[in-house]
Amino acid sequence: MVMAVSAIMSQLAASVTPNGMAVSLAINAVISVVGGVMVARTIPAVTFMFLKAGLSGRDLCKPDKESKVPESMGLVTGCVFLIVMFLFLGVAFGQHFLNPTKLFPHAAFSEYLTSLLCICCMLLLGFADDVLNLKWRYKLVLPTVASLPLLMVYYVNLGSTTVVMPKLLRPWIGLTLNIGPLYYIYMAMLAVFCTNTINIYAGINGLESGQTVVAGASVALFNIIELSSSQAFSHYFSLCLLLPFIATSLALYYHNRYPARAFVGDTFTYFSGMTFAVVAIIGHFSKTVLLFFMPQIFNFLYSIPQLFRLVPCPRHRLPRYNEKLDKVEASEAEINESEMRWWVLAALKVLHRLKLVHLRRGTGPDSGKLFINNLTLINLTLLWSGPCHEGTLTNTLLILQILSSALAFVIRYPLADLFF
Amino acid sequence: MVMAVSAIMSQLAASVTPNGMAVSLAINAVISVVGGVMVARTIPAVTFMFLKAGLSGRDLCKPDKESKVPESMGLVTGCVFLIVMFLFLGVAFGQHFLNPTKLFPHAAFSEYLTSLLCICCMLLLGFADDVLNLKWRYKLVLPTVASLPLLMVYYVNLGSTTVVMPKLLRPWIGLTLNIGPLYYIYMAMLAVFCTNTINIYAGINGLESGQTVVAGASVALFNIIELSSSQAFSHYFSLCLLLPFIATSLALYYHNRYPARAFVGDTFTYFSGMTFAVVAIIGHFSKTVLLFFMPQIFNFLYSIPQLFRLVPCPRHRLPRYNEKLDKVEASEAEINESEMRWWVLAALKVLHRLKLVHLRRGTGPDSGKLFINNLTLINLTLLWSGPCHEGTLTNTLLILQILSSALAFVIRYPLADLFF
Repeated sequence: MVMAVSAIMSQLAASVTPNGMAVSLAINAVISVVGGVMVARTIPAVTFMFLKAGLSGRDLCKPDKESKVPESMGLVTGCVFLIVMFLFLGVAFGQHFLNPTKLFPHAAFSEYLTSLLCICCMLLLGFADDVLNLKWRYKLVLPTVASLPLLMVYYVNLGSTTVVMPKLLRPWIGLTLNIGPLYYIYMAMLAVFCTNTINIYAGINGLESGQTVVAGASVALFNIIELSSSQAFSHYFSLCLLLPFIATSLALYYHNRYPARAFVGDTFTYFSGMTFAVVAIIGHFSKTVLLFFMPQIFNFLYSIPQLFRLVPCPRHRLPRYNEKLDKVEASEAEINESEMRWWVLAALKVLHRLKLVHLRRGTGPDSGKLFINNLTLINLTLLWSGPCHEGTLTNTLLILQILSSALAFVIRYPLADLFF
Repeated sequence: MVMAVSAIMSQLAASVTPNGMAVSLAINAVISVVGGVMVARTIPAVTFMFLKAGLSGRDLCKPDKESKVPESMGLVTGCVFLIVMFLFLGVAFGQHFLNPTKLFPHAAFSEYLTSLLCICCMLLLGFADDVLNLKWRYKLVLPTVASLPLLMVYYVNLGSTTVVMPKLLRPWIGLTLNIGPLYYIYMAMLAVFCTNTINIYAGINGLESGQTVVAGASVALFNIIELSSSQAFSHYFSLCLLLPFIATSLALYYHNRYPARAFVGDTFTYFSGMTFAVVAIIGHFSKTVLLFFMPQIFNFLYSIPQLFRLVPCPRHRLPRYNEKLDKVEASEAEINESEMRWWVLAALKVLHRLKLVHLRRGTGPDSGKLFINNLTLINLTLLWSGPCHEGTLTNTLLILQILSSALAFVIRYPLADLFF
């Protein structure tokens, strides 16, 4: 087993000498920038096609709720990303084309192919969802199926299923624990989780694309730090995917930020989520990637009462636009007190005390009714900060994303050394 | 070079022993049938989603031109095909998962991954085309880019670029000629050609899906015959892709045949074209695949005068529905005699004599005008057979496809032995 691992590792290492790595990363960066420019220019050029096809949405947090913004622009981002990666593959493996006497690094090559296959599948699924409004069961089953080749490649390349135990547990369990098939279930769930978690932390101009750029840049920074570690190839691999991903997402953010001239659609959130899942799984640093997803994870956990219908969940949970102030404020869901289970109501009251939710009894015509803020991080931020301009709100949330990335680095480096 | 080739071939052969081949083909066939049933059941279940999304077309060759038929159902076919292939990969390479001491056949694995990546890309492009009506330049450039990984895998697995010369030319050129980069250009063009050639041989109920099933079954039959040849792996590989492809396409044909309850859309024609290109290229029998495309190639060549605007080309070239007879007849384009180049007109007159086109001078209010049948194989068939029922026309064209497959086998076996 160890011999096989080392054989594969040496094959991988031979495929990319440190020198070759630097050169191909530099080329990757250049093509990525070109790709970013291409996305930035293509979006306005194809806007009319999207509007004509009915792929558009109304911007609900604006005085003018009628004019339409093109939706699903993640399609442009994703397609350009794939084109950049196809061209890059020719570069990365070009030395082997020119020097066919060396053994071709098939293992590394199939890692790239699988990653692009999974990402392309999710792009297709996301676009189909935007056009057809797929049911929830498809959104859970299809990413799981799409991640199958990824798990196969992980298995084939003898990816470890061993988890390092925290120092605290070592006297009982030992240094490491091989959790075997459980690790594969964890990875398949990671793909589903990543694709959906970005999708539900959305709804205001620039947030989907902005959070992606921040999280992507954070993972890329982590990869750069680790490039000199023993796992250099994994981090090099991750960077090769992340650079074009960041460049094309940034170009999308340029059109998606306040006031949005393009909406990203599920096409983008699925594409983006799967890209993170892919680098996390094949790069073998899924726990670290999750650290950079703290706001998304918090938003997911905070949403659970509404997702599981313990609390009523309206169709849209995005903030309410206050026309008089030209500001957005936390939106609310109406609670029917008699239909609520007693323990849910009690829990909500405790959370209200902790200022984590806002429960209020209606006034005027609504007196007697009970209201709760919609349970998203966006609305919680508005509860704490008070009503604010939509652009300011996105910036606040992106700063929160940056701060949580900084915290992630603290957890990953000084803190992890304490516990592991 | 030869050593490297034989090393790869032995690796491929080791990956699928004849016995393992039979077992995994049997499993493939079973999952394919399940996939076919899934497609047949899913299409009616999702029809309302497609209609609601505006993905629908009117059936112009019917008395009731208003009721809408769901379009782009190739999306269901393609997605189920991908799911079947993902599950099959687990089966085909399962022996290596269970027996990790043997060297994993990375080369074969990356052939599958690349094929699925190219097919998935074309599915995405086709669906985007159905939704957004892409411009022609995208339809030519994107399949070329999508076929890049395919060419890389061909190169990596040391695919030959040597062409065997016909006996007639051997005294001058020799037994074989290595055409090098030209062979790659040929393969890239094959991908573009296959995706577009099925797309323009379309327009009547059941023709797109029907021709695909016939051509697919013909290639599969060829593969079965060649399974005992020295190129067994290539043909086994092709069969593994073709069986689920035929099964899911047949299920689509069931809903697409006269009177159509589903249209296939560019989603299907692109998906289908790329699947043929993939098996042709990776299976190393592209010339034989083209033999099974004779009606499509004839239709393409026959269309050239209209495609290149030597003759006026109306937006739709499908047959005209004659309500009185409940039959379809050849549709026509109006020619402005004064704007035509003399040699085009002269050529058309010769072709008219040969009964390959029908030129006629208008009567009544149209007197003085000149008309020509639209230059498609469908209209040419109608010229020869006279007006007929749409269902009958599709059947005639599918019988033509079957006969041309039979001819292809004659050319491939007895005739080729004479010349090569």
